[in-house]
Amino acid sequence: MTPGKKLQGLVAATVTPMTPDGQINLSVIRQYVDYLVSEQNVKSVFVNGTTGEGLSLNTQERQQLAEEWVCQGKDKLDHVIIHVGALSLPESQELARHAAAIGASGIAVIAPFFFKPANKDELIAFLQKVASEAPAVPFYYYHIPPLTGVKIRVEELLDGIKEWIPTFQGVKFSDTDLLDLAQCINKNEREQFAFLYGVDEQLLSALAIGANGAVGSTYNYLGRKTNLMLQAFAKSDLALARKYQFLTGEFLSFVIKLGFGVAQTKAIMTFVSGIPMGPPRLPLVGASEEFIAKAQAKLNSIVWPDGD
Amino acid sequence: MTPGKKLQGLVAATVTPMTPDGQINLSVIRQYVDYLVSEQNVKSVFVNGTTGEGLSLNTQERQQLAEEWVCQGKDKLDHVIIHVGALSLPESQELARHAAAIGASGIAVIAPFFFKPANKDELIAFLQKVASEAPAVPFYYYHIPPLTGVKIRVEELLDGIKEWIPTFQGVKFSDTDLLDLAQCINKNEREQFAFLYGVDEQLLSALAIGANGAVGSTYNYLGRKTNLMLQAFAKSDLALARKYQFLTGEFLSFVIKLGFGVAQTKAIMTFVSGIPMGPPRLPLVGASEEFIAKAQAKLNSIVWPDGD
Amino acid sequence: MTPGKKLQGLVAATVTPMTPDGQINLSVIRQYVDYLVSEQNVKSVFVNGTTGEGLSLNTQERQQLAEEWVCQGKDKLDHVIIHVGALSLPESQELARHAAAIGASGIAVIAPFFFKPANKDELIAFLQKVASEAPAVPFYYYHIPPLTGVKIRVEELLDGIKEWIPTFQGVKFSDTDLLDLAQCINKNEREQFAFLYGVDEQLLSALAIGANGAVGSTYNYLGRKTNLMLQAFAKSDLALARKYQFLTGEFLSFVIKLGFGVAQTKAIMTFVSGIPMGPPRLPLVGASEEFIAKAQAKLNSIVWPDGD
Amino acid sequence: MTPGKKLQGLVAATVTPMTPDGQINLSVIRQYVDYLVSEQNVKSVFVNGTTGEGLSLNTQERQQLAEEWVCQGKDKLDHVIIHVGALSLPESQELARHAAAIGASGIAVIAPFFFKPANKDELIAFLQKVASEAPAVPFYYYHIPPLTGVKIRVEELLDGIKEWIPTFQGVKFSDTDLLDLAQCINKNEREQFAFLYGVDEQLLSALAIGANGAVGSTYNYLGRKTNLMLQAFAKSDLALARKYQFLTGEFLSFVIKLGFGVAQTKAIMTFVSGIPMGPPRLPLVGASEEFIAKAQAKLNSIVWPDGD
Repeated sequence: MTPGKKLQGLVAATVTPMTPDGQINLSVIRQYVDYLVSEQNVKSVFVNGTTGEGLSLNTQERQQLAEEWVCQGKDKLDHVIIHVGALSLPESQELARHAAAIGASGIAVIAPFFFKPANKDELIAFLQKVASEAPAVPFYYYHIPPLTGVKIRVEELLDGIKEWIPTFQGVKFSDTDLLDLAQCINKNEREQFAFLYGVDEQLLSALAIGANGAVGSTYNYLGRKTNLMLQAFAKSDLALARKYQFLTGEFLSFVIKLGFGVAQTKAIMTFVSGIPMGPPRLPLVGASEEFIAKAQAKLNSIVWPDGD
Repeated sequence: MTPGKKLQGLVAATVTPMTPDGQINLSVIRQYVDYLVSEQNVKSVFVNGTTGEGLSLNTQERQQLAEEWVCQGKDKLDHVIIHVGALSLPESQELARHAAAIGASGIAVIAPFFFKPANKDELIAFLQKVASEAPAVPFYYYHIPPLTGVKIRVEELLDGIKEWIPTFQGVKFSDTDLLDLAQCINKNEREQFAFLYGVDEQLLSALAIGANGAVGSTYNYLGRKTNLMLQAFAKSDLALARKYQFLTGEFLSFVIKLGFGVAQTKAIMTFVSGIPMGPPRLPLVGASEEFIAKAQAKLNSIVWPDGD
Repeated sequence: MTPGKKLQGLVAATVTPMTPDGQINLSVIRQYVDYLVSEQNVKSVFVNGTTGEGLSLNTQERQQLAEEWVCQGKDKLDHVIIHVGALSLPESQELARHAAAIGASGIAVIAPFFFKPANKDELIAFLQKVASEAPAVPFYYYHIPPLTGVKIRVEELLDGIKEWIPTFQGVKFSDTDLLDLAQCINKNEREQFAFLYGVDEQLLSALAIGANGAVGSTYNYLGRKTNLMLQAFAKSDLALARKYQFLTGEFLSFVIKLGFGVAQTKAIMTFVSGIPMGPPRLPLVGASEEFIAKAQAKLNSIVWPDGD
Repeated sequence: MTPGKKLQGLVAATVTPMTPDGQINLSVIRQYVDYLVSEQNVKSVFVNGTTGEGLSLNTQERQQLAEEWVCQGKDKLDHVIIHVGALSLPESQELARHAAAIGASGIAVIAPFFFKPANKDELIAFLQKVASEAPAVPFYYYHIPPLTGVKIRVEELLDGIKEWIPTFQGVKFSDTDLLDLAQCINKNEREQFAFLYGVDEQLLSALAIGANGAVGSTYNYLGRKTNLMLQAFAKSDLALARKYQFLTGEFLSFVIKLGFGVAQTKAIMTFVSGIPMGPPRLPLVGASEEFIAKAQAKLNSIVWPDGD
């Protein structure tokens, strides 16, 4: 990992490998790291998030996974961000301390969503209590209102946030409210905040207004293609960038119609990478054989602009 | 506690007492038990549920609380039901085993709500994995779609449930869909299931269609009055029952307008019982002084039919 | 019609008969009136509401229907309430004037729901502008938040409403928030307001807290049975009332699973009454043959407590 | 108007001028046309839509307004699109015939939203019945799920649409689901469909994926600035385009916090253009003096990249 380097570009929201009987499978993390770097050109990861079924794991499992990722990513990855959010504040704090102790590159926290903070102050108070347990670790807010129902605007949240959370370093922004994202970017130009977009199927639209990169599940298996999109965009070749976005969108649109979620992502990732990611954990249930066959055929049928 | 006795009548959804600095305060549970029995005529409790901030506690805290309630309630309470639901299945299973080990009267599980079960089978699969960890303990499903977003009809869930969960014993039904509740009651007449209603402000409407009783936060401080409502209803004195329901409704309607939730329930319970329940835990924030003053004045101003 | 008689008991929310090519079919209204009175023992109607596809008709059609119902119901029905709500205030006002001119027993208005009133004052202002066009006609508010998204509490709306709408006479309350309904009833005891419940499948629960009666689509074909429920309730025979509610609930629960709406109600009403109600108007599409067959078989299979 | 010219660039969603006593005010339409062309460089309009309070007007008012816009725009505007959507199909058909008769450039229809079409077929059936009444007039679908609740994906709707609606010409796309929009654009490249984005505050993100232009209320008063954004984007000067988007976003973000809707747009448009747009119609209520003062000050404080 590369301390001090700004988090940008593509970050894979990792799935959590499991054995067939549903235990976490640490043994393939090393292979997973190598695959991401060599096959997908992705050098940063977001561990124990939504895609990683972080909230379906218990505290011990989350810690074991975090440790394995940090350990295996040591000289290979730029950033290993550990999601330490939880409904229980003391649990979240414990995870934050642990992430600091093992040398994670950063921690991220989702807004609590059973009892929901009613306003900015209540949300900041919660986040602050977690961040302060890891006072030397960059802190990221994980904004995902479609799943949490917490719709506090990030623009508002960021106003003065470093007074409360000196380690604040950026946002995983998983929402389609691009007015909010644009204002965040614009109003915090002097800060070195990272604004990483989390709605993979419309990343190009976020880049257009200045997002630094992306955190998402598709970069597990479409990282290389999406990196080509980022390169095209960086070269102002919007027409080419759009082609990549259209194609990833076509694939996602296809699987969304079939029923798409974390269970399906694990299945796709298994057949693309060859690494057995195993079943999801309840309440999720595994992807059907039919889904897998159709998704694989669809993915193979795509002709990318780079001739692949 | 009274093994084998059917769960019915009023069940207090207990608040979790905390010290001023936010730690759980086990030292007042004994007093809490005595207060419920002697002042409110309430002899059953639902521990670590929504009102108890169960999901805001960590595993250890939940176990300590469960243990203290079972211990203190031993010869005083009829039922001590422990809510063991969690987003993480292994955490929920651990809590179920613990509840069995300490001799709880029953366990209850909320539907997982980050990843949501998409249909009855997925929900049953999750619940079954928890219930089977406590194979001798009565199991209750905690249905609260306004908070979980899981709207699988209970009528459908209950169809054949004992094949999957032999310990199934009933439902805490916290929703306003009384068609669903009525069908549950009607279709399971031969079973000895308990249907306990969880929307306190309209309990009378649930009694009218055959609910066995209620689980709710207001029975912490309005248990005695609500018991009078149950008695009136049992004697077919609907006019009198309605008076009680109107008055509790008037109070609840009043505090709802002021902003009412678990934090406010803790404050009310503190001034009514004299037991210091302490602050709520983040992301909840404590009730304001203004709220407390107004709620207290309102409660004192009510003239009940029994002349109190 | 019976001027001055309070609106109570069962009110049928009438469907709008249409010809096979989708025009309104006034020719069967006379038969419809006779059927309701003689077969269902229902003597009041709510015309051009949700069930009547009122908002799918144009102004002229609404007026023609209103006129036919008032005319045919003259010496046969107690109340002919015309729903005159519309998104457009001048259209609603025109309908109100027309209803007054033809001698309707009352008018009702749904909350506007494209632009939604943000608070009580805005809603009252709209309703007042309609009511004042028919200054001698009883006015009813049609509260149906599941369809309108307007969740302003009726209790709050009614506070002082006669100052603004002197003709105010009651509410069609189509929501499951029975706290709100109970408070409305309790706080307006001195007024002669009618509180007519609109969620047919849980009417008994509304009666328990003091509702005066009901407006709904099922009274078109289950009016006689529901009247027996009302009688049982009036005699304090809650057990018998519950049987009727369970059975109507069982039917509704069955058809809801099949997909149930106004189109299906028209189909059911056609086979029960023998009056050809015709297809619904787009965007609704007609019930399938399969639905009709299943619904008919289910309805026939029910054994009612009166031996029918 | 310019028959045959493709609809693209900026289209102002016009407000409906009203007299102080709430009647439509046709007398200022001429001035409004001149203002749009000369001050805002906007040459196309969308009449009787959401911003125009189309659904709050009665049929006659909608026709009078349509006629006046077509008449006044004759040699000055490129496109006068008349929104003819209504909850009532015959009303919508009547408006479509009228729009055709007066020579409108196009008609648009919102999805019906009281009874909602359940799938693509039901929506197409409704739209087709309207479009076929104006068989020589370009037809646009007005997609605005945040207001209608109709979430049928446009990509799916467009698949084969010309078989049903030969006049189909494009979409006003008022939603933040840019995956759907991108797929629409990509899959219909051979057609000459217009994809006009309707979420003004994030137009740049839609341009990035290939939108042809925009329909929105802000182009009434920020049309000239937004045209500069379009020009910058066309020249691949994304940095400059972004500055414009950030500034319009800053203004919109500011007024949204104050409470922003059609009533407020009318007030802003009045002070910017000098044309008295009058009050909105109930259920909307006029903008407060405080809002007007603050919005005006904010708008004046913005320093645009063109030095204005």
